[in-house]
Formats: sequence, C-alpha cells, structure tokens
Amino acid sequence: MSNSRGTDADWIAVDWGTTNLRAWAMNASGSDYASACSSDGMGSLARDQFEDALLKLITPWLQTEATTVVACGMLGSRQGWVEAPYATVPCTPLSDRLVAAPVAHPLLKVYVVPGIRQNTPADVMRGEETQIAGFLALNPHWDGVICLPGTHTKWVLVSAGEVISFQTFMTGELFTALTRHSVLRHTVAAHGWQDAAFLDALSDTLSKPERIAARLFSLRAEALLHGLDGTSARARLSGYLIGSELAAARPYWLGQQIAVIGAQPVAGYYRQALEVQGVRPTITADQQMTITGLATAHSRLKATV
Amino acid sequence: MSNSRGTDADWIAVDWGTTNLRAWAMNASGSDYASACSSDGMGSLARDQFEDALLKLITPWLQTEATTVVACGMLGSRQGWVEAPYATVPCTPLSDRLVAAPVAHPLLKVYVVPGIRQNTPADVMRGEETQIAGFLALNPHWDGVICLPGTHTKWVLVSAGEVISFQTFMTGELFTALTRHSVLRHTVAAHGWQDAAFLDALSDTLSKPERIAARLFSLRAEALLHGLDGTSARARLSGYLIGSELAAARPYWLGQQIAVIGAQPVAGYYRQALEVQGVRPTITADQQMTITGLATAHSRLKATV
Repeated sequence: MSNSRGTDADWIAVDWGTTNLRAWAMNASGSDYASACSSDGMGSLARDQFEDALLKLITPWLQTEATTVVACGMLGSRQGWVEAPYATVPCTPLSDRLVAAPVAHPLLKVYVVPGIRQNTPADVMRGEETQIAGFLALNPHWDGVICLPGTHTKWVLVSAGEVISFQTFMTGELFTALTRHSVLRHTVAAHGWQDAAFLDALSDTLSKPERIAARLFSLRAEALLHGLDGTSARARLSGYLIGSELAAARPYWLGQQIAVIGAQPVAGYYRQALEVQGVRPTITADQQMTITGLATAHSRLKATV
Repeated sequence: MSNSRGTDADWIAVDWGTTNLRAWAMNASGSDYASACSSDGMGSLARDQFEDALLKLITPWLQTEATTVVACGMLGSRQGWVEAPYATVPCTPLSDRLVAAPVAHPLLKVYVVPGIRQNTPADVMRGEETQIAGFLALNPHWDGVICLPGTHTKWVLVSAGEVISFQTFMTGELFTALTRHSVLRHTVAAHGWQDAAFLDALSDTLSKPERIAARLFSLRAEALLHGLDGTSARARLSGYLIGSELAAARPYWLGQQIAVIGAQPVAGYYRQALEVQGVRPTITADQQMTITGLATAHSRLKATV
C-alpha cells in the first residue's frame, strides 16, 4: 500500500479490479494530485469488507463535509461491493445511471460505473467502458476500433460515440497460466524480450492459425534439444498467443482505424504486431484514460445531483 | 500408496511419470499379478530419493536373489534417476540400450527405457515409446498413426515397426491450467459431460480453427449472461481444445489408420471426435500397453544378458 500525504480531495477516482485497488485524489479542476494503491482487489474481499479497504487508502483525503467517490471495475459485479447492472450494446460507454454503494461512513458517497454486456455473442466488460469513455472525451468524434490489451483483452467497435460490439480474448491470462502452471514454466523466462522471436512467432501464427495447438510444446522441446533460451521462448510464446488473438480478431482490425489503450510493454507488443499487418494504431496510456473516464462520470453526476 | 500382499516377483515393471509412480509384479509367464502406486512422481524427487521411493512400493515382491526392474517414463530424463539418452527418429520404439540406474540395494537391478527425440520439428517423448512398443508387440505388422491422449497428447506416425515422426500437443495441460488457474474456474464444472456440447464445440473449432482464441472467454460470458451450466461448459471447453488439436494434427489423421492408446473417459472423447470426421480409430487401454511394452523390453534384456 502506498499513499501520498493527505490533503482534502474535491472528489476521489477509484479503479477497483479483481486483484488491485487504485485511488486518485482529484482537485476541482479535474486533475489528480495524489494516488494510492493496495492489493485489496475485488477477488479477495467479502461484500462487507469493501468500505474498510477503501477507507484504508482514502481517509487522508476526506473532507470535513461529504466526499464523493466514483469507481469503476469489478467492484460493480455480482460478487463485488454492489451490483451495477450492465448496459447493453449498442450504448454509450458511460451509462447515466451510476449505482450508489451501501456506505456506513457519514462523510462518504460511493458511486459505481456499470459495465457493458453484449447478448450475442455473449460478452461482458467492467472497467474498460470507463477507459473508452475517457478516450472519447479526449477524441469526441473518433470512430474506429479500440483494443484494450490486458488479462482479458477487449476489441471494441465504436461509432458515433457508442460501443457497437466487442469481443474478449483471454490472451494475458493464457500467458500467465502457461508460464506458471504448465511445463513451459521450465522454459519461459520471467523477464526479457526479443523482437525478432516475437515477430517470427506472430507471423507463423497469423499465416497458419490452425497450427496454434502444435506450437506451444515446441518451445519446451526446442529448449530441451536445441538450447532455446528463456528470453526467446518468452517472446515466442507472446507471439503465438497474440498472433492467435489477431487471427481471431481480424474482422475487428482489418481496414479499421485502431487505438490501443494499454500499459507498457504490452501495448507496444500490440503496436508492433499491428504495424507488421499494415495497421498503424494510436497508443494511449490506460491509467490516464481511466482517470479521464471517471472524471467524465463525475462531472455528469454533479450535473444531475 | 496401495500395495497388494507380498509375493516374490519374477521381475517388476515400472511406469514412473512426473506425478505418479506405478509398479507391477510380473510372473514368469509375463502376466502382472500385483500392482502398487504412489504419488512419488519424478517431479517431487531429488536424484538420491528415487531408490527409496521405489523400495517403498516393491520391497514385498523382492526375491532372495537379485530382482530386475524395467522402468519407463520421466525417471529417465535429465532431472530423473538416471539420464537415458533419447533415440532419434526414425527408430524402433524400444531402443536396445536400456540404461542401468545407480542402485545401493544389493538385490535390485533397475533398467530404464530411453525416450525418443525428433530434431525437426523439435519434439520428445518418454513413456509413450513403451506403450507404442506394447501395441506393436500385439499388432506386429501394423502401420498407421497412434494417438496417445494425455497431459501432453502425442500423434505418432508408425511404419514398418518404426516411429517415423511425431508431434506433441499440450491439450490436457491446457485444460487443467484453464480450469484451475483462469477465470474459467468459476464456470467449468469439475465433473460431468454433455456429448452434444462437446461435439458442437469440436465442429465449430474444426471448421474455423483460427477462432479458438475468441471462444474461450465466451464460456465465462455465457455463464454470466445466459446461465450456461458448468457441465456444458466443461464439455465445450474440451471440444474447443481437442478441436484445436485435431485442426493442427490433421496431417496425422486424415486418411490414416488410427489407434488411440489412452485412459477413459478421454480416449472415448477422441474416438467420438475422430468418428465425426469419418475416422474409425481402434481404442486400446494405455496401462496394458505400458505393461506389454515393458515386458517386451524385459524379454530383450534377458536375451542379451
């Protein structure tokens, strides 16, 4: 847990995921001037523990009068603090109906941003809608496809300010599961990168995506027989998995204007991968999009209260 | 650990994998009349612990004179009891050169069956070569492709008594990693099956294998939005993963005579999957092929000693 020195916040922005909790103290002009984070993710909390987990981070920022918190992410799921029912596509990324969480503290008001659902094919997001709203707040007439790489990467078609359709890929989670919980844990280095190995593996997979199941064990066998090093293995595994994703997501990126909202270094891997396909994406930082999206939600909340 | 009542063995057959150790007491006519197993797999043992782990199982069967043990599997790997260097394809499944393990017990002789390597594309097997040898001992003029489903499924082209080429797929390990260490753990039941869900998912994946990366998260989303039940999710995940394997292994099974050496229920899933592709495989039980293969190795050892 880290926390900057306490000062009253005009309001507080919160991104509450499955594994992490992040909060930013916001001033009246809409800038964040302090931040705090902890590992009290939604996945480790019972419903009655959310308020304490939040107060541990934000108490130094609370005003003498009520402070408003606007939060996005998994805290709005059925297993979270309060269920914020999904909006359904096509819809604007920020629903007008933020959901108030039950709070005991007399000086705290917490509002949760709903996620978005798509009935066919079934898909859901919680948190990414806020990043998309942040991006569209900065780029109000932007049409195209937004890629949000992460544990569960999303490809999102946006038109006229609305989310039209989207698809989720478990690419990040597959990478983690394979490198921690399969025989590849002996082969893939924990850090390091090699562009050529990544791009070769990506190209192999995009040209013959039906071969993906045959490629994974080859990393182990090449390490055993031919001394494949762990850094190359890491970059190749990423190339196979991102290549498999791009093969399946082709309708989303082919001939489209693309923005990538993500953290480094992964956002950079997607940029490289798309560029060799002739697509030149715009890259933006995910955390700033989250804050901007939460600020948009907060300003609408002020307008309606 | 389980162990039948002690009686002298003519020799002892051992299958020593990464997670399990199995031993069979064999009589002079080549039949197993007692068995024992423990969870002292290769992965949990240091080199100097193998002999004790084996003696814990087989001491009741030891003769008053020296007893021969013939063993296959991961105990022959670099991290095992003694490294038994790979034979290289094309080669007969059982190398003539069994490797003696270092043993302190005065009445014990342990011989290890070498695995098989393929340099290009890089691939390795340890244990499956013994099952293949068992199958070929029972079917001496058989040519075709042998599929050995498991944690690491192997597809093996056999001709004129030799292993010509093979390819490994991490299908079983992927299934375990996804159902234990990804968001799908909330969605996929630990047991149960639905043929229709399996076959639909298999057919989807075989007709559009490039979509595999898009299918996995759909299980989670359909459970959240449309109440997909855990048993269907389990069968569908198997269908996606086996479908992806069959798509990549097509050169191995298309137009070939196929034998599946495996345990139930998984061998049955492969039978179903192949039958809808118009292939009618022969199914054999993996444990009996292991014992038969080890008996073949033992009889050759006797002939050379």
